[in-house]
Amino acid sequence: MLNRVRSAVAHLVSSGGAPPPRPKSPDLPNSTSAPPAAPPQAPRSPPARAGSGSAAPARTVEARASFCRPTFLQLSPGGLRRADDHAGRAVQSPPDTGRRLPWSTGYAEVINSGKSRHNEDQACCEVVYVEGRRSVSGAPREPSRGQGLCFYYWGLFDGHAGGRAAEMASRLLHRHIREQLKDLVEILQDPSPPPLCLPSTPGAPGSSDSSHLVGPQSCWSSQKEVTHESLVVGAIENAFQFMDEQMARERRGHQVEGGCCALVVVYLLGKVAIIVRNGEIIPMSREFTPEAERQRLQMLGFLKPELLGGEFTHLEFPRRVQPKELGQRMLYRDQNMTGWAYKKIELEDLRFPLVCGEGKKARMMATIGVTRGLGDHNLRVCSSTLPIKPFLSSFPEVRVYDLTQYEHCPDDVLVLGTDGLWDVTSDCEVAATVDRVLSAYEPNDPSRYTALAQALVLGARGTPRDRGWRLPNNKLGSGDDISVFVIPLGGPGSYS
Amino acid sequence: MLNRVRSAVAHLVSSGGAPPPRPKSPDLPNSTSAPPAAPPQAPRSPPARAGSGSAAPARTVEARASFCRPTFLQLSPGGLRRADDHAGRAVQSPPDTGRRLPWSTGYAEVINSGKSRHNEDQACCEVVYVEGRRSVSGAPREPSRGQGLCFYYWGLFDGHAGGRAAEMASRLLHRHIREQLKDLVEILQDPSPPPLCLPSTPGAPGSSDSSHLVGPQSCWSSQKEVTHESLVVGAIENAFQFMDEQMARERRGHQVEGGCCALVVVYLLGKVAIIVRNGEIIPMSREFTPEAERQRLQMLGFLKPELLGGEFTHLEFPRRVQPKELGQRMLYRDQNMTGWAYKKIELEDLRFPLVCGEGKKARMMATIGVTRGLGDHNLRVCSSTLPIKPFLSSFPEVRVYDLTQYEHCPDDVLVLGTDGLWDVTSDCEVAATVDRVLSAYEPNDPSRYTALAQALVLGARGTPRDRGWRLPNNKLGSGDDISVFVIPLGGPGSYS
Repeated sequence: MLNRVRSAVAHLVSSGGAPPPRPKSPDLPNSTSAPPAAPPQAPRSPPARAGSGSAAPARTVEARASFCRPTFLQLSPGGLRRADDHAGRAVQSPPDTGRRLPWSTGYAEVINSGKSRHNEDQACCEVVYVEGRRSVSGAPREPSRGQGLCFYYWGLFDGHAGGRAAEMASRLLHRHIREQLKDLVEILQDPSPPPLCLPSTPGAPGSSDSSHLVGPQSCWSSQKEVTHESLVVGAIENAFQFMDEQMARERRGHQVEGGCCALVVVYLLGKVAIIVRNGEIIPMSREFTPEAERQRLQMLGFLKPELLGGEFTHLEFPRRVQPKELGQRMLYRDQNMTGWAYKKIELEDLRFPLVCGEGKKARMMATIGVTRGLGDHNLRVCSSTLPIKPFLSSFPEVRVYDLTQYEHCPDDVLVLGTDGLWDVTSDCEVAATVDRVLSAYEPNDPSRYTALAQALVLGARGTPRDRGWRLPNNKLGSGDDISVFVIPLGGPGSYS
Repeated sequence: MLNRVRSAVAHLVSSGGAPPPRPKSPDLPNSTSAPPAAPPQAPRSPPARAGSGSAAPARTVEARASFCRPTFLQLSPGGLRRADDHAGRAVQSPPDTGRRLPWSTGYAEVINSGKSRHNEDQACCEVVYVEGRRSVSGAPREPSRGQGLCFYYWGLFDGHAGGRAAEMASRLLHRHIREQLKDLVEILQDPSPPPLCLPSTPGAPGSSDSSHLVGPQSCWSSQKEVTHESLVVGAIENAFQFMDEQMARERRGHQVEGGCCALVVVYLLGKVAIIVRNGEIIPMSREFTPEAERQRLQMLGFLKPELLGGEFTHLEFPRRVQPKELGQRMLYRDQNMTGWAYKKIELEDLRFPLVCGEGKKARMMATIGVTRGLGDHNLRVCSSTLPIKPFLSSFPEVRVYDLTQYEHCPDDVLVLGTDGLWDVTSDCEVAATVDRVLSAYEPNDPSRYTALAQALVLGARGTPRDRGWRLPNNKLGSGDDISVFVIPLGGPGSYS
């Protein structure tokens, strides 16, 4: 009865780099000033009713943007006010009436207890249709032949320094994924290996068969095998980059000052690509913090010392070095070390360390506690002009879970949650709640997943007592925004 | 009865960086032209009898260096010739008579089948005594008070492009570890947390109590906790760096042109620090190949393009791009991606990729198949002057296994082997051989571990048949040098 698949929040984003990774002219659509067109998005979740009204003038949209909640909540103006009330902290879920979310997904959210003006979490749940691009086959498509692709999409976005980046990502990230997948529509439906090379221009001879392109090359015994799966992973990775670049371009006009972490699930052709954090039953994600990414950050500071602006040292020390300790020997770690050793303290060791602090208090450049995410293009070190963005990566970590490999039962669920959930709830507690709530409903009752999402949000929020929100064990509940998706993996309506 | 702990070869070396990591003046002894003094190395394995005779003039030592085999084999001149015979490929083990290796460790080796002139593997097994350094306590040591530390040490070194680097590492690496540990002798024997800061000069007031140094610091809520274990890890990490730097300094005089991978086990105060590769029952190591380290290498090439010398591109392609494909779109991966995507081919994509090929054929800069190791300071790209060393890391990956956490039985062993073993032997096959051989001996018979090492070497070598060395299943045996340590974890004489 234990759920076999779960997942947890979402410090989005992948490995490696530093200076904003600049894909070298992959021939990708411009999703810029004209963000990717919305048109053929086939089966959609319930139509928007509240939030950022589509006909409102630009300025109004922006002013209201911080109020907006996921459209699938179908909030009335009164509902929107209640969702924005820090005192009552009413839990919000999609209405029982009306269309359900795809796969009977459950959803619940609650605003923070006063930490920020509005709820800075955002969520998105969509079925997205991808139409192939003409240029791939090289010939104009016949409408009858062109079978597009559908993917199911769930996204949670945990904003910081304002809700704009999270709101923008919740509106647009899945469209960037769709853009990236357009090239792959035919390729993914063809069981033969992907072509290594495509013609540049529509009308050029097709190269779906790549074998003729392989010539004898010194040092290459053969070509590398590239799987369909890795093409989807690459498409998602690039979509995150384009989303981040769009935020950079539009940050002035739309005032996207803050940033956000992202946790995204994509279901396509039998596989779920998950970008994640902390779930440990089948752990599908991890946090990207200054501690977790210490070596990547230190390496970047070491190789590009100009990014440290003479203010920081790439070396780590267990505490701040004091001027009077010059010449003594202090424990340190550099980017290659997992252990500690002593070094003689020199003048430049008195600079502030790039990474400092532990656990929740760990900070990069004494400023930010997450090291991957979207946005933050304007973020600078406190009382300095030194930009922080070069150290932030917007690449996701993508993990693939093959849904067809297991026969899932209606109690197998994937739980996505923002920090608000996971800060106060252990994996085991989540598993226990899953068990308790689902067993109280008939297996084929689709409302059980929303009930579960609500129970998880309530369990993390607690109840008002002793001047705070407290859990049954009297510890403090989460004062953060809390958002939870419960995705049934074998329940009614799943990937039909 | 299954062995619980194992380990496998040894592409030495750690994470991260690139330009030879330069520890900033940790106050470390100069192990240079005057390599670390040998003196107080308490209980030692049997005295050297063959190999590089200690009284031979320098030139002779060098001429004979390539012949030398581990001193604990106690080879006579005739034995040395047999060990050097590619045709017979006799398996060598320490003699039954005389002192056993520490812990009754088993050892066996065999030369390659003609791949290189001599056996390029080397091995070392020692008990090393570490005397504390005066400057730590700040006061001259009283001999009676000074309790030094002992560590047990096993090392396998797999040389390439000559055996000199492996030979040098087998002679000196444990001495570098000893040098690094000298500062820690008192600290490791004191159960209180390590001091974060040490005085620079002998005679200065001791600072074993670090708490008084901690002042209120902006952004630092507290000092970081540093464990004793992480100090030992740091000492081993730095010892590898100093070993590599010594090779750089001495490469001309001693003609250390090649390089080597290293697999090292250190037993100290109840814990084993293991630097490793492929064993999967309890996997204690992994290989460092261009494929495994692709993202580190690409990142370095991306951040420091001058290291690519205009000859290479940091992007990966599934096969060589051809000039006639300019303008078409080819699959690629950059340093941040795990998936693949298409990009338009530009002129610089026609350069050779930094990382190419798959499996055994994977190469970095079209030259080398291992990406961490000691030595290789003179290595250049074929028919070019571009140096390869900046991309090679000499940092080990250190894993700690706490021997005191388990009650080991005499059949629990740690198996260390060079590529020669693991290229043709799976983990399961090794486990089966462990079972078969050990069960044929009394549990308290110390010769069982040498018998096991011999069986593993023989099983990987095979027997001459059909113009080659063949295994019972008629597949080819390993033509490489094969060296194996079998370390009993609960057997007679273990860590007494």
